[in-house]
Amino acid sequence: MRFTNMFIPTLRETPSDAEAVSHKLMLRAGYVRQLAAGLYMYLPLGWRVMAKINAILKEEMDAIGAQEISLPVLHPAELWQQTGRWDEIKEEMFRLKDRGGRDMCLGMTHEEVMTYLASREIRSYRQLPQSWYQIQTKLRDEARPKSGILRTREFIMKDSYSFDADEAGLDKSYELHAKAYHRIFQRCGLEFYQVQSDPGMMGGKGAHEFMAPSPAGEDEAVLCVSCGYAANVELAGSISPGERFKAEPHDIHAAKTGDGCPKCGAALKIERCIEIGNIFKLGTKYSLPMKAFYLTEDGSERPLIMGSYGIGPARIAAAAIEQSHDGDGMIWPASIAPFDAEIIPLNIKDENTAKTAEALYNALNEAGIETLMDDRDERAGVKFKDADLIGIPKQVIIGERNLKEGLVEVKDRRTKEALKVKPDEVLKAFKS
Amino acid sequence: MRFTNMFIPTLRETPSDAEAVSHKLMLRAGYVRQLAAGLYMYLPLGWRVMAKINAILKEEMDAIGAQEISLPVLHPAELWQQTGRWDEIKEEMFRLKDRGGRDMCLGMTHEEVMTYLASREIRSYRQLPQSWYQIQTKLRDEARPKSGILRTREFIMKDSYSFDADEAGLDKSYELHAKAYHRIFQRCGLEFYQVQSDPGMMGGKGAHEFMAPSPAGEDEAVLCVSCGYAANVELAGSISPGERFKAEPHDIHAAKTGDGCPKCGAALKIERCIEIGNIFKLGTKYSLPMKAFYLTEDGSERPLIMGSYGIGPARIAAAAIEQSHDGDGMIWPASIAPFDAEIIPLNIKDENTAKTAEALYNALNEAGIETLMDDRDERAGVKFKDADLIGIPKQVIIGERNLKEGLVEVKDRRTKEALKVKPDEVLKAFKS
Repeated sequence: MRFTNMFIPTLRETPSDAEAVSHKLMLRAGYVRQLAAGLYMYLPLGWRVMAKINAILKEEMDAIGAQEISLPVLHPAELWQQTGRWDEIKEEMFRLKDRGGRDMCLGMTHEEVMTYLASREIRSYRQLPQSWYQIQTKLRDEARPKSGILRTREFIMKDSYSFDADEAGLDKSYELHAKAYHRIFQRCGLEFYQVQSDPGMMGGKGAHEFMAPSPAGEDEAVLCVSCGYAANVELAGSISPGERFKAEPHDIHAAKTGDGCPKCGAALKIERCIEIGNIFKLGTKYSLPMKAFYLTEDGSERPLIMGSYGIGPARIAAAAIEQSHDGDGMIWPASIAPFDAEIIPLNIKDENTAKTAEALYNALNEAGIETLMDDRDERAGVKFKDADLIGIPKQVIIGERNLKEGLVEVKDRRTKEALKVKPDEVLKAFKS
Repeated sequence: MRFTNMFIPTLRETPSDAEAVSHKLMLRAGYVRQLAAGLYMYLPLGWRVMAKINAILKEEMDAIGAQEISLPVLHPAELWQQTGRWDEIKEEMFRLKDRGGRDMCLGMTHEEVMTYLASREIRSYRQLPQSWYQIQTKLRDEARPKSGILRTREFIMKDSYSFDADEAGLDKSYELHAKAYHRIFQRCGLEFYQVQSDPGMMGGKGAHEFMAPSPAGEDEAVLCVSCGYAANVELAGSISPGERFKAEPHDIHAAKTGDGCPKCGAALKIERCIEIGNIFKLGTKYSLPMKAFYLTEDGSERPLIMGSYGIGPARIAAAAIEQSHDGDGMIWPASIAPFDAEIIPLNIKDENTAKTAEALYNALNEAGIETLMDDRDERAGVKFKDADLIGIPKQVIIGERNLKEGLVEVKDRRTKEALKVKPDEVLKAFKS
């Protein structure tokens, strides 16, 4: 992609209303814009990052045999009345009436609709287990939307739901998801911890959260860097509606007094984390009131045993920026960067520069390296600043002086180390 | 994908409340289920078709330099008040208040939000032209949702918007989109016509619709099969809100009296079509009230000249079924089929059958042929019926009798022609 063909409205000034680093950088680098409180517009670069994350989510969900489906955003009230959440959930739920005066709401999460579908379609133990997921819009009327795309009123969520014949089946589905979540966050390049948590409003018998340490987060967790042990201190907010709980006091005590990790004895640290995912053992909380029953082998009727599993891709993007940036801008993990490489021809009016840039641009794209080329007629300083701000992992700098020696510069955005190579050695330099 | 790992709830009976063939078949073949009036759930097969169509939409939009972004579903009322559509549009718009009592609506279309974004970000002629698109959820409170996924209250739409400096620029952007739409519908395997239409509520200076002839459609058009000339008779409903108009009376007259096509003289036919896409020259209808101005080269301020362009992927899917099915079920065009091939081992308990099926399944998937294998322990008749119903273009039938001669059967879903080949010649048979 050529810079002149792409809408990348970078800003020189730091927006005054943004506090979190990820929020400031996403605005400055032209990744997102705000439409209204808690409502964000993803611009081309921001949407490319979301697409990369969504592709990883899809691959890892498919790998555990979960099946992608798609359910409406708009829900009839009846379903939420059946489970009691129509009354339990207060102002966080967007409610409306349709032209016929029927009560409707906007989906904050999809346990009700998924269970409705299962109640109509799963009849026999022979159809179990099932895992269904979607990557889709959710709406929650947050009291205080903030921190850019971290806490919004509308957001995309990968939510999956498992249906099993018994608790042992649920344990297996739960474990499959937990492991998939580990792979997802690892692939997205995040530092993260799996934290035991309280099921809260989701109900059920067990839950874990995935926490990415970051000062922009709203949660506090006791973390052991040595063995990965982690526990929540207090959950102020969550991807899921309404949780608010305290975690094990002994962990907090241990962290504060230096008693050490209960698992390995190493020193604990307390850190305000970003919740990037959560998994719940729902049991029969939804299947019982919604009559989602199946027939066992001996012909008796039993409720489906359910689990639900959520990940917010925007939170992954924000956490990645929080954990990986410097004073000049974003530093994307290669797996979720909007492009793999950026070509920076310093003086596009120089014929040799333009020719070399064009040839490299074609060669890299042909080699499957997604490449952005800054073909603007701008000063070198502007191009350097923008390149560091938008944070594409590899930069290929083409300057007249180096070119005279038949060389271009390959620079790593993270380490800022630069290597002079011949144009046809750029690919090799990327790999080293 | 193995049939036993995939949720494909086929039905033996034709659902009584479905009228359109596409609606009946999508329910029977387990592609979709209804949640409530005009609200549909896409099951794994249905969602795979949508993903295939969306990928084509994305490729063709990218090919004309349009850039993918993503805007919220939830809109503040102010934007729609600025253009007057808050009052102009009646019950078709879902409205609600947020927890602060602010008026909001659900996006039926995104002219307002796109123009808002442009008004904040496009300042200079140097930034023009721009084309932005998204593939995203729209909501419209249809008075009479019907025909399955053809007329729903919530649906996915590919909507793009062009911003140009002048009318000549708009003409170019419009033409680029029209050509892209031709490629999209061709690639999706549809018979379609481009019909001049009235801009209606969208305003502006010109519009075309794309019509797929089908008895399930709600529109009537005068069509010339010979040269492609087409004109609307009456538009009862539309992807866009509120249009309702009559087309050229002389065309209707010509069709009825046999006067012939005004362009080539050939016989005209009148057909109730499905509107699968529309394109509008909006001009300054949105940029003027929303103050989306840019600075020209000489420093004067001018309104952006806009176009908007919509395609409903669910309508493409339904139109494909309407145009391509037989008494046994769907017959998917290869480009948008949920799988390329289905392997049907007639008796999965026969060791040789199972082994051959497994080997072929791996070989086809490795060759990039997306393959579904019916590994269920079901009677051959059930498997044949389901395979014809779900309509995957190529079937590979593995029976004990043929296997004894070292052969399997490759059958074309459309022609029902079958060819006996050696298992390692299946790929070659697909190509012939």
